[in-house]
Amino acid sequence: MAALRTIEWVPDRPPALIPGRVRFVDQTRLPTVFELVETTNVEDIRRAILMLQVRGAPAIGIAAAMGIVLAVQNSTAPDVPSLLAEVERVAAMLAATRPTAVNLVWALNRMMKCLRQNLDLTVSEITQRLASEAVAIRDEDAAMCRAIGRYGATLLKDGDTVLTHCNAGGLATAEYGTALAPIYTATEQGKHVAVIADETRPLLQGSRLTAWELQRAGVPVTVICDNMAAHVMKTGRVNMIFVGADRIAANGDTANKIGTYGLAVLARAHRIPFYVFAPTSTFDPKTPSGKFIPIEERCPEEVICGFGRPTAPEGVSVYSPAFDVTPARLITAIVCEKGIVRPPYRRNLRQILMT
Amino acid sequence: MAALRTIEWVPDRPPALIPGRVRFVDQTRLPTVFELVETTNVEDIRRAILMLQVRGAPAIGIAAAMGIVLAVQNSTAPDVPSLLAEVERVAAMLAATRPTAVNLVWALNRMMKCLRQNLDLTVSEITQRLASEAVAIRDEDAAMCRAIGRYGATLLKDGDTVLTHCNAGGLATAEYGTALAPIYTATEQGKHVAVIADETRPLLQGSRLTAWELQRAGVPVTVICDNMAAHVMKTGRVNMIFVGADRIAANGDTANKIGTYGLAVLARAHRIPFYVFAPTSTFDPKTPSGKFIPIEERCPEEVICGFGRPTAPEGVSVYSPAFDVTPARLITAIVCEKGIVRPPYRRNLRQILMT
Repeated sequence: MAALRTIEWVPDRPPALIPGRVRFVDQTRLPTVFELVETTNVEDIRRAILMLQVRGAPAIGIAAAMGIVLAVQNSTAPDVPSLLAEVERVAAMLAATRPTAVNLVWALNRMMKCLRQNLDLTVSEITQRLASEAVAIRDEDAAMCRAIGRYGATLLKDGDTVLTHCNAGGLATAEYGTALAPIYTATEQGKHVAVIADETRPLLQGSRLTAWELQRAGVPVTVICDNMAAHVMKTGRVNMIFVGADRIAANGDTANKIGTYGLAVLARAHRIPFYVFAPTSTFDPKTPSGKFIPIEERCPEEVICGFGRPTAPEGVSVYSPAFDVTPARLITAIVCEKGIVRPPYRRNLRQILMT
Repeated sequence: MAALRTIEWVPDRPPALIPGRVRFVDQTRLPTVFELVETTNVEDIRRAILMLQVRGAPAIGIAAAMGIVLAVQNSTAPDVPSLLAEVERVAAMLAATRPTAVNLVWALNRMMKCLRQNLDLTVSEITQRLASEAVAIRDEDAAMCRAIGRYGATLLKDGDTVLTHCNAGGLATAEYGTALAPIYTATEQGKHVAVIADETRPLLQGSRLTAWELQRAGVPVTVICDNMAAHVMKTGRVNMIFVGADRIAANGDTANKIGTYGLAVLARAHRIPFYVFAPTSTFDPKTPSGKFIPIEERCPEEVICGFGRPTAPEGVSVYSPAFDVTPARLITAIVCEKGIVRPPYRRNLRQILMT
């Protein structure tokens, strides 16, 4: 199938990279409307991340990097020091959009490093370098996801059914996805693999996005409500669990979409292997364990008015954590672009980062 | 607080029981609209059960019993044998509406037994007897729920927070509920008890109904998505789990709303007690274990178009079991109107039924 280009940099006059614009799939409109949004304004990027038009840890990292390019491209800074100050402000603003995924900060740090290494160039040359860096982040993400797909596909055999949560597919990354990459790769290899997709409340990324992109790719997919996963496991309808990650601590503890931790507990109780898929940009060696990962809380409306009509009485209290942390002990393996990492994670994650 | 009268028989000219009509809360319109529906037509009752306007195992038993009264009241049968044949047809039709809850069949059997014991009376006298029987089923349900509340409240201490799933409250029964009865009783006793309500996909009985009736009663309630329950347990936000039941097999295996089984596994993993609340009319000694309980599957639209707009791509496959079975080994105790039953359930459930 033609890969889905979730977010990309579109130059106005190729092959010159700049000036250009960011084009992305508006994920809030799926599955009913497939709309590509184009913008030359970093504020649109900020809002797109905040409103989840662009979501998924790798994709928001790419969006932020491209947002920096837009800011520089539009800058009226008269000299390089004032440009640096302006970009630092923009980067801080983008970093503040979502706290849990580490890729966002990772991508912004990489852009700032690129900027600081080129302070002796002209503003125009700096813009050029930053555009190249952002495009490289995107292209590397696509390549990393392909590599994750190749390693992950070795875990799959003909006839397997994988349960997945949220969307860690092409829509969450530049192209192929993390948890879904092995499904695509195995399918390309001729294996028959089916997917059960948790709908993933409150924002239904599973039914809206995962089901949409798997259906588009011809992979058999069945949607369930999140609370059906235990019954699905108990009745033998699934062989393994594949999920993505928003941040992986040094000890292997993994933050991912709310509901992931519960799935991991259920998988262990049913002796079903539980795999996490993420590029190394999701690894956060500076965070020693899951308890240091900040968990974003989102607004009540997403839970009780998420479908355009109230689904709870007015004024009711709501608790809505957007992520949870799965302890490393419940994770069978972590698959990244460099290979399959198994416990003990503290040692093996450090080792693979050095290779 | 004034008890919520979920379903009742309203005589046209009290104190005479007949002729009369059935009045019930249309639960599909909550939490936004509180509407009492009245009908004299058994077909409306059948549809109300099918469309979940009346839901909850005890409440649908009561509705079915009152439906029989409506059928007899409207009957043009010229003699008792043809009345019997007609009522048998109506009972079979009502029994076919929903397969999992045993209270439905239990209530219908009780009505048929009442009818068969009075075949020597006139049609008018029989109608009178059946109306009394249906009202007795309702009143006994209210009394049973109060008793469940008294036993259950002994499990609660000041400051406890209970996680519940679906709606096993007043709306699921004649008045006080099963799993929520102890919350109401403990609150009446002056204990401060809070509730976390799983929203309970696909039909959101937790956020629509449980949150509504607890809020109405002044009990602090917080709504979460089903997939947040594991995180809520892990972070110490809840002391115990209270759920209702649609059928309890002879060995204690319990069918209840989809998602209950997963909660029970999670509760065990977090060492949180897991209690089931149900009147003995939910006990089914003829079903030896959970594997013999039929599990209703409902239509895909409830999952992927449940909020008035499509939440999954067109044509996607959906699996939607309405119930699951929690094995007895995960249940800390079963609380009925006769007391608190603890393992071993096969022996202790049999004993309590004989008391």
